[in-house]
Amino acid sequence: MDSGLKKDWSLHPQLAQDTLPVGDMPLTRVLLANDANYPWLILVPRLPGLVELIDLEENAQVQLLGEVAATARALKALTECDKLNVAALGNQVPQLHVHVIARRRSDAAWPKPVWGVKPPLAYAEGERTALLESLRQHLKCNELGGMDR
Amino acid sequence: MDSGLKKDWSLHPQLAQDTLPVGDMPLTRVLLANDANYPWLILVPRLPGLVELIDLEENAQVQLLGEVAATARALKALTECDKLNVAALGNQVPQLHVHVIARRRSDAAWPKPVWGVKPPLAYAEGERTALLESLRQHLKCNELGGMDR
Repeated sequence: MDSGLKKDWSLHPQLAQDTLPVGDMPLTRVLLANDANYPWLILVPRLPGLVELIDLEENAQVQLLGEVAATARALKALTECDKLNVAALGNQVPQLHVHVIARRRSDAAWPKPVWGVKPPLAYAEGERTALLESLRQHLKCNELGGMDR
Repeated sequence: MDSGLKKDWSLHPQLAQDTLPVGDMPLTRVLLANDANYPWLILVPRLPGLVELIDLEENAQVQLLGEVAATARALKALTECDKLNVAALGNQVPQLHVHVIARRRSDAAWPKPVWGVKPPLAYAEGERTALLESLRQHLKCNELGGMDR
């Protein structure tokens, strides 16, 4: 996939502000939402100009699906969640991104979708570091270098 | 795909109650949410026992993605919407289903996700019939027989 990735891609500033980088998979940058209410990943294809899933070529759609499935399996294994929520909405941030969220029946928004229900809750530093490290191991992706963050 | 479809599949009663059948694609039953606030399709793989996207085998995941993309393109062409929302949530109805929703900046929930924002608005009969017919033409799927509804 790397050959299709363009150098002129950059992460939308709102996504950069609301998340912590986990690392890069072949197509997507994987981000952890900085909200301890829910283990919540966001996958952003590193290609410029994408808004809708159907803006991706078919083989890239399939690659994205594979990366969504891999992150969903990792999140389920790590969190033993009750349900996964997967969504591409983009009503507020137009850059194509896919949410993969681990839900529990005891979480702050259950059974509602998470968006707009509770203000983000900051992670304790140790909890955040441990979750990021576990995710990197499960997803076999490395921490991004300083230039990319 | 048809060979993998099991006869013991049935549509969850809550999905049956809240929607009108559009027809069947190779893997999924396509439903129109009975809510005139938003042109809103729901795709349900016709295989028993599925809860998560990752419960599907990989080739069926790719087939589902193709049917999601086809319905998204049809909905975009028919409605000239501003944004598509695609989501597999399932916190309330456990049977695996994927929402494909045409959003407008002028709609009742924009920019929020649609779930739980407004009570469903009934379609006028003529509008509903016309939308169902247009969807069937775009998706090349036929109205279900009486036995399947």
